[in-house]
Amino acid sequence: MRIVVVGGVAGGMSAAARARRLDENAEIIVFERGEHPSFANCGLPYYVSGEIEQEQDLLVQTPESLRETLAIDVRVRHDVIGVDPAAKTVLVRNADGVSTVAYDELILSPGAVANRPPIPGLDSPRVQTLRTVGDAVRLKDTVTDGATRAVVLGAGFIGLEAAEGLRLQGLTVDIVELAAHVLPALETEIASLVTAELRDNLGITVHDCVSATAIETGPVRDVVVLSDGTRLPADVVVLSVGVTPDTAVFAEAGVETERGAIVVDGRGHTNLDGIWAVGDATVSTDAVTGLRRPVPLAGPANRAGRQVADHILTPERARPIPATVGTAIVRAGGLTAAMTGANRAALAGSDNDYFTVHLHPANHAGYFPGAEQIHMLMHVRTSDGLILGAQAVGLDGVDKRIDVLATAIRNRMTAPELIDLDLAYAPPYGSAKDPVNLAGMIAENVLDGELKLWYAEQLDADDADDYLILDVRNQDEYDQDHLPGAMLVPGTQVRERLEEIREAAAGRPIRVHCASGKRSYLACRTLTAAGLEAANLSGGLETLRALIPGEPALV
Amino acid sequence: MRIVVVGGVAGGMSAAARARRLDENAEIIVFERGEHPSFANCGLPYYVSGEIEQEQDLLVQTPESLRETLAIDVRVRHDVIGVDPAAKTVLVRNADGVSTVAYDELILSPGAVANRPPIPGLDSPRVQTLRTVGDAVRLKDTVTDGATRAVVLGAGFIGLEAAEGLRLQGLTVDIVELAAHVLPALETEIASLVTAELRDNLGITVHDCVSATAIETGPVRDVVVLSDGTRLPADVVVLSVGVTPDTAVFAEAGVETERGAIVVDGRGHTNLDGIWAVGDATVSTDAVTGLRRPVPLAGPANRAGRQVADHILTPERARPIPATVGTAIVRAGGLTAAMTGANRAALAGSDNDYFTVHLHPANHAGYFPGAEQIHMLMHVRTSDGLILGAQAVGLDGVDKRIDVLATAIRNRMTAPELIDLDLAYAPPYGSAKDPVNLAGMIAENVLDGELKLWYAEQLDADDADDYLILDVRNQDEYDQDHLPGAMLVPGTQVRERLEEIREAAAGRPIRVHCASGKRSYLACRTLTAAGLEAANLSGGLETLRALIPGEPALV
Repeated sequence: MRIVVVGGVAGGMSAAARARRLDENAEIIVFERGEHPSFANCGLPYYVSGEIEQEQDLLVQTPESLRETLAIDVRVRHDVIGVDPAAKTVLVRNADGVSTVAYDELILSPGAVANRPPIPGLDSPRVQTLRTVGDAVRLKDTVTDGATRAVVLGAGFIGLEAAEGLRLQGLTVDIVELAAHVLPALETEIASLVTAELRDNLGITVHDCVSATAIETGPVRDVVVLSDGTRLPADVVVLSVGVTPDTAVFAEAGVETERGAIVVDGRGHTNLDGIWAVGDATVSTDAVTGLRRPVPLAGPANRAGRQVADHILTPERARPIPATVGTAIVRAGGLTAAMTGANRAALAGSDNDYFTVHLHPANHAGYFPGAEQIHMLMHVRTSDGLILGAQAVGLDGVDKRIDVLATAIRNRMTAPELIDLDLAYAPPYGSAKDPVNLAGMIAENVLDGELKLWYAEQLDADDADDYLILDVRNQDEYDQDHLPGAMLVPGTQVRERLEEIREAAAGRPIRVHCASGKRSYLACRTLTAAGLEAANLSGGLETLRALIPGEPALV
Repeated sequence: MRIVVVGGVAGGMSAAARARRLDENAEIIVFERGEHPSFANCGLPYYVSGEIEQEQDLLVQTPESLRETLAIDVRVRHDVIGVDPAAKTVLVRNADGVSTVAYDELILSPGAVANRPPIPGLDSPRVQTLRTVGDAVRLKDTVTDGATRAVVLGAGFIGLEAAEGLRLQGLTVDIVELAAHVLPALETEIASLVTAELRDNLGITVHDCVSATAIETGPVRDVVVLSDGTRLPADVVVLSVGVTPDTAVFAEAGVETERGAIVVDGRGHTNLDGIWAVGDATVSTDAVTGLRRPVPLAGPANRAGRQVADHILTPERARPIPATVGTAIVRAGGLTAAMTGANRAALAGSDNDYFTVHLHPANHAGYFPGAEQIHMLMHVRTSDGLILGAQAVGLDGVDKRIDVLATAIRNRMTAPELIDLDLAYAPPYGSAKDPVNLAGMIAENVLDGELKLWYAEQLDADDADDYLILDVRNQDEYDQDHLPGAMLVPGTQVRERLEEIREAAAGRPIRVHCASGKRSYLACRTLTAAGLEAANLSGGLETLRALIPGEPALV
């Protein structure tokens, strides 16, 4: 049997390697357009930053190592330019010309190409992408050659990593993002903390809600012109505004695509006999929303590659390729930001009614030195408590909580079931009630009707006269800043000053808050027991400030 | 309604606090025998070590703060010395005498007391336990007063933490453990790395397979005499050989106990009307094995306390208290060691047929600076792949993987389902195939019959002439050390030297190994395809060395 793989790296190489492990006798050929069949694509920004020092370290496998260890025939600088599904052949072009190669099974792993928006001047040689080892080397060479100003177009995960990498090399860096904040996949209240980190600790300038309208090429530098008129000088421009599946050749051959991405079944099989596909070029089903979209992430691609080989060679025991939970993580300065499951944008496109809980627990026992806050949110389905998504940002312990929540989402756990997780507790690692347990407890309180939430977004939406804002922090916290018109009753005085609060409310609902939502929760319980209508500000002023940075809402 | 809670800290205080949140009008009284109703019991060793500097930091809540925030009537130095279930009263003794207090609902959270084995001299004033704030203060005072030698009896989690704390204060420390290795709940191949850390990096002496037979009290120092005749001088002896539920008073009142621990139903209710119990004093059901035992862990106690209050005050919506997964973690020097689910000892007492996989993945992408090995094992049920337990040790990333696996076990995931977990991947945090994914892949290979394992323990058990040991590492690795009689064929040469291997095997099974089990897995696949009987050493020489430290098995 001859298995031909189009495109190496994550999905393709995983499929090829697994195929060899399952079948010692198969002929396995990998055609890779680029120079490297297996490189650390997620490591490229860290080569730019200098943290990964050697180009060599980016090469996970070489054609030689793949031949030696796995007897895989890897042909680099070979571009598959056509498929004949009837004849079961591919047309391959390399430096020597074009040839036809037959296959029994064909695995497509062409990946995606960087989007190129129609911006005048985008073909300037100073505009680069960061998709290949060659890209990373060129970008780093630019640094070595004395570049001092960089503009990064697009503040997604890779754009942010590229910006940080260049900044760590000492360049002045501007990030341009069309969305309202960096990392558009993250919610505002999480992403705004990343923006603050970029600005305050990394010294990167973020331009949001704008786009590049032109790149003016000059003899010394380019200038990136933004839609608000800002002109940003640039020795180098990194283009990172998303990717598009690289599938034209295969669509032409009759492979079914959906908005450019290859449609596969649960086995990774396309509509054409003997043709399979994996990775960034394929459509995935979202595990939470059921929506179909390409998910350009290395982990799912690697695992799908392995599974496609299973479906080809041991179909009787192969498991279906799972729907994607879409967990992602990024380092930004000292912070880690991560998400799993659906975000608000994805949920808006699905028919889930949900609520969001916010919390700001410490990464480990507060009394143990070095405790750091984690800012978390979790989206929970109102009807049954199903966990729909979660995000977090903080200095430490973010990846652990998001991984636990990703596991919870994969298992379709409800939020209250999070309470029952026995997570590893010793003071350096967590708390007896871990942040994940706490998220479950808060959500359970909401589901049970024991806790009503109000949200910072409602401040602007509603008439301030229609409710009483009750601040249950201490006097000194209140004196530093507080919401306009807020009544101060420290949490420990709520019981004894109930009548005073009742009079101030005068029949209106009471919007209670404290710094993080904990003291105000207790106050809400006391107020509710006294027959008052009370709701708790989700995440307290911590979340409010993250949502409304620099707003004069606090006086 | 009056709710009386016997014993504060984790379970009791959680129950009391939750009761207040659910019922503003209940009268809630907590009787605490000690001085502190809510202290950081898991933090005590870190006060000894000096990492937590102030005694004050160990006090999570005080009677005053609990009255102010939650209107809970906390009475410290009050000892409950009797219960009359028919009259619904408890008998309470304090400095002023004995009084009778009525209850509507009674929550027992008496905790456990340190075991005191019958060792002559154990009543020496130099022998201390580490269970209370007072214990921690006394232990630290001993340090301040010039103690230079400590002996810790018992190398469980708390014993180890106490030993490290004293060592960090500069004392010479000996640990004495009756079991074959420190942390008896951990498997040998995990615990032996902790022993090495204690010895090599902390400078603690570990005495295993021995017990203390006497403590000789001297004018200047005590001497701890061990069963092997060793005499260990000690300015202070820390007794940490397990705990026993402190339940005599309640058993006498008719509360059903099982080997001393209070028997409760899924609501935390005892056999007596209106009497509930939580925490270290109760019997838990093990989520994996179904075995019943007390689980003295803070996390489950805290959460059970909360749930008991739910069952008392909002029974219509309360969820059952879950079976215990038994996740635990400990810091030892620079290492973290952790476990979740069942270990071999627990599985020996259950009717699960299982196999174990070992792996040594990096905590994050190997090409990103600072990658550190995690040494992991996972027990998997042979019949259906259910994950039964997992353990890990390493410098970084251990807690995350164990928490993910604890979540997997709670959800009764099978090992192959771990492959499908979408865990957060960027080079500083993990790999496209996370260690947890990898553990699932290895186990799936075993379950599918694609991979046969052999274990280091079999080296001694079987006759060396009955099999061929094939070492597929490189020549230079082999030259450093290798198993006696091992044939060297580097992995990349296995295909071309198949006939040579076939002749050497001469019909015998081939036991293949490399350093970690990865290269040898590939070799096994090639050998098996060639019709040879091949098995792979689980975890490779890494695991073998951890199991047989200092053995001359390697020549």
